[in-house]
Amino acid sequence: MARRHMPLRSKMGWSSPDRISVCGLDLSSEILGKLNLGDFAFLEIKGRVPTPGESLLFNAMLATLVEHGMTPMAIATRLTYLGAPESLQSAVAAGLCGMGTTFAGTAEGAARMLQEALAAGHDDSGLPALAATIVADHVRAKKSIPGIGHPVHKPIDPRTPRLFALAEQTGSSGQYVLLMQLIAEEAERALGKPGALPVNATGALGALASELDIPWKLCRGLAVIGRAIGLVGHLAEEFRDPIAREIWERVEDETSSEWRTAID
Amino acid sequence: MARRHMPLRSKMGWSSPDRISVCGLDLSSEILGKLNLGDFAFLEIKGRVPTPGESLLFNAMLATLVEHGMTPMAIATRLTYLGAPESLQSAVAAGLCGMGTTFAGTAEGAARMLQEALAAGHDDSGLPALAATIVADHVRAKKSIPGIGHPVHKPIDPRTPRLFALAEQTGSSGQYVLLMQLIAEEAERALGKPGALPVNATGALGALASELDIPWKLCRGLAVIGRAIGLVGHLAEEFRDPIAREIWERVEDETSSEWRTAID
Amino acid sequence: MARRHMPLRSKMGWSSPDRISVCGLDLSSEILGKLNLGDFAFLEIKGRVPTPGESLLFNAMLATLVEHGMTPMAIATRLTYLGAPESLQSAVAAGLCGMGTTFAGTAEGAARMLQEALAAGHDDSGLPALAATIVADHVRAKKSIPGIGHPVHKPIDPRTPRLFALAEQTGSSGQYVLLMQLIAEEAERALGKPGALPVNATGALGALASELDIPWKLCRGLAVIGRAIGLVGHLAEEFRDPIAREIWERVEDETSSEWRTAID
Amino acid sequence: MARRHMPLRSKMGWSSPDRISVCGLDLSSEILGKLNLGDFAFLEIKGRVPTPGESLLFNAMLATLVEHGMTPMAIATRLTYLGAPESLQSAVAAGLCGMGTTFAGTAEGAARMLQEALAAGHDDSGLPALAATIVADHVRAKKSIPGIGHPVHKPIDPRTPRLFALAEQTGSSGQYVLLMQLIAEEAERALGKPGALPVNATGALGALASELDIPWKLCRGLAVIGRAIGLVGHLAEEFRDPIAREIWERVEDETSSEWRTAID
Repeated sequence: MARRHMPLRSKMGWSSPDRISVCGLDLSSEILGKLNLGDFAFLEIKGRVPTPGESLLFNAMLATLVEHGMTPMAIATRLTYLGAPESLQSAVAAGLCGMGTTFAGTAEGAARMLQEALAAGHDDSGLPALAATIVADHVRAKKSIPGIGHPVHKPIDPRTPRLFALAEQTGSSGQYVLLMQLIAEEAERALGKPGALPVNATGALGALASELDIPWKLCRGLAVIGRAIGLVGHLAEEFRDPIAREIWERVEDETSSEWRTAID
Repeated sequence: MARRHMPLRSKMGWSSPDRISVCGLDLSSEILGKLNLGDFAFLEIKGRVPTPGESLLFNAMLATLVEHGMTPMAIATRLTYLGAPESLQSAVAAGLCGMGTTFAGTAEGAARMLQEALAAGHDDSGLPALAATIVADHVRAKKSIPGIGHPVHKPIDPRTPRLFALAEQTGSSGQYVLLMQLIAEEAERALGKPGALPVNATGALGALASELDIPWKLCRGLAVIGRAIGLVGHLAEEFRDPIAREIWERVEDETSSEWRTAID
Repeated sequence: MARRHMPLRSKMGWSSPDRISVCGLDLSSEILGKLNLGDFAFLEIKGRVPTPGESLLFNAMLATLVEHGMTPMAIATRLTYLGAPESLQSAVAAGLCGMGTTFAGTAEGAARMLQEALAAGHDDSGLPALAATIVADHVRAKKSIPGIGHPVHKPIDPRTPRLFALAEQTGSSGQYVLLMQLIAEEAERALGKPGALPVNATGALGALASELDIPWKLCRGLAVIGRAIGLVGHLAEEFRDPIAREIWERVEDETSSEWRTAID
Repeated sequence: MARRHMPLRSKMGWSSPDRISVCGLDLSSEILGKLNLGDFAFLEIKGRVPTPGESLLFNAMLATLVEHGMTPMAIATRLTYLGAPESLQSAVAAGLCGMGTTFAGTAEGAARMLQEALAAGHDDSGLPALAATIVADHVRAKKSIPGIGHPVHKPIDPRTPRLFALAEQTGSSGQYVLLMQLIAEEAERALGKPGALPVNATGALGALASELDIPWKLCRGLAVIGRAIGLVGHLAEEFRDPIAREIWERVEDETSSEWRTAID
């Protein structure tokens, strides 16, 4: 009746009295002062140090995700810190909890679409037909196509050409980038919206993560890494110029205004 | 009776259709491909781009905090992902919630001790006496001194000499580093533990954060940034070589073993 | 260009110097000592006090969700408390984060299935055909049917007959309960698994929540309410008989055993 | 060198195919339909079923903590749901993270003060002198006294007399309640603020938790249980009458107004 135990193994890190090893490297002599923070994230995720080109590209990809201004997540982090100033980590955690399908889902979705489409292997010459099939499938199923169009950034998302140029420059632009671009072009044609559905930042990130062989299920993790930095940044500003209490008081005052009037 | 409203302001970021601005820089042309992820974290926290020396040091500081092996936080993140695989962000958030006083408190504590001690300004010649006072105060109050000693890394914490060397090399080693070192020496003398209470990594980080003029209240934020990366790394490994279900089943089996035996 | 503002309103609660009002009731005179905790949850969710029958049933429904033993969520809560004992609330929050689709999704799924099926209105006589259609649709789409079968509780889930009996006794057993039972019977027939796919606790809860006119999107909230209590219970036990540190040390030891051997 | 393993044990709950046991009771026959939700919370925390008097009191205590209107936690929960509607549990978790020292600390603080003061045992006749010592100690240390005074509820907190009456009625009013009342009277006298420092709800809860022999470290858990219900209630209202997007848009518009003006 006894369940068979599986051994527990991990290669992330371990320590001895005089040495700390992380993913096979010595922290003090091979990481500190040698790898920048984005390189370290690459090492953690892929288990190896990036090439110089991968380093440039991956740092840029993560940088795209750090700061999106006064998002609901940033407000939630500030409000949580107001209530629990002894737990800065929980304030960031609260903000990260909001990084779900509404805001972070489409890079994941674009990566999934691209990775599933190219799983079987294709010649470049077959990609236009593949893009047409993907667009047609989404249209027929009445699903939005991940990674294209943006409510604010029109007619182009300024991050996309920059990210694609960095990929080109570092030799990381391949079939995933090409397919993503073809899907955007095909969507504009099929939906009759010329110039309105360019590849957006999440589409670019989904394509580039795929070029770096990062599984689509982990794409939200890139957003989490970036945004954790951004939320700490918002707390740094909250320390200098607090707004959380003012937001709370305004919302509380207005939501209860009818009740308070009734009793006066 | 009406409460006076304060205006709400933030300089973190904003967007127009063709431009995304972050802390005063243009994301596409001034950040992507130009700043590495640690530099961007510096920009978010301090509101300005680091110098090359600050960049090297700050990236190393954050790198110290990324990966501490199979911590309770890493296990909690893996268990949470097992229950909610659709919410990778919440799995990281759950892990971050555990980054409290037990594990992340002492960098904060060391920074606070140093910043409060040097708030009034001191000559270098006065620092030994200041260190003696600090140690005596902690001993009298029966409080542990933050930033010295380590249960595993003896007689020295291998991260400390590396971090202090990087600070020296980049011109960021000043009174905070000196005072932290003097406190460790004085503590070994006063407590009669020669060679047993060296400056540990959190003491080094507290001193270096102070050198970079980062308020002690934000020090836990540096740990949060680093560890968010590490927890995503643990999820990447969990995808390849899962252990969460095995941990759960073992713990459930053993904690209920007396009950199950009783009924058989 | 200015966005039109919508007014912010809430009826949840407000206070004056001598009175606290919650969902239209006076807290001190109409809630404290009058409503039990489950009744209060009903008031919060539905905006009105339950009838005696609804009170009995709703308290039992929530009670079903409180304690499921040593779940991954309970372990995560204990590990998080180990790291951040100053933030008990975050330890519970960390545990709740794991209450996702793996463990809490099927009550939601069952409620959704039932509510969408009966949205248009049906005679009781039409329910067997409706159940057959639902089962056939799931089989054809190769989707599992929510709310039936259980890995441990066979051939029946002991909670289901008790919950359905309470619903019958309190006059809350209607078409949703009937349809859920018919789906289980039809599934056993269609899949050739007689006696193997009874309505499980989440199927029963999905049906009963529907009988109480609670939208399926809120069903996970019932699980959250119950489990928050259970996780506090696990912390109470952790205070008396701690196991978190032992779990952590065992996992850390074993996952790093190959590395430590290599260096010895 | 091998670490000695401690056995892992828990009495919270376990299951066999036909039976679910929770804290020694059979869930189906002894809990469902028999214990209300507050009673179950008592069982989880104390390991035994409450007496009828304890049931009445404990349900009232938890009910005090459910709904405090539009708190920062409620707003954070709503904003988090906006970002991650697939993870209702994480939205509640995010709100709970904010239940820290600012809002939930004083019940814990009052319970600690009372439990430490009465740990050694006292005659009732010695309590006035004990109250005077406690007040004097806080005044001398310039610390605020937990559990007395309230910014809105003046001259009395309407919850306190109701909670104390329920305690009296159920035979749970003892030395902790008496000492809390004496501390409030002494504080008004010592600080020259007659009628301004009554026992507030958190002081009452701290005293009553102590009467029920609940350790002060667990008091925040009572707040977490209550507030989890309240936050689910806020989400139920958010489903019907959403305000999160409006709050976000207003805050984003105003915080970026200077930047947007500059570019127009």
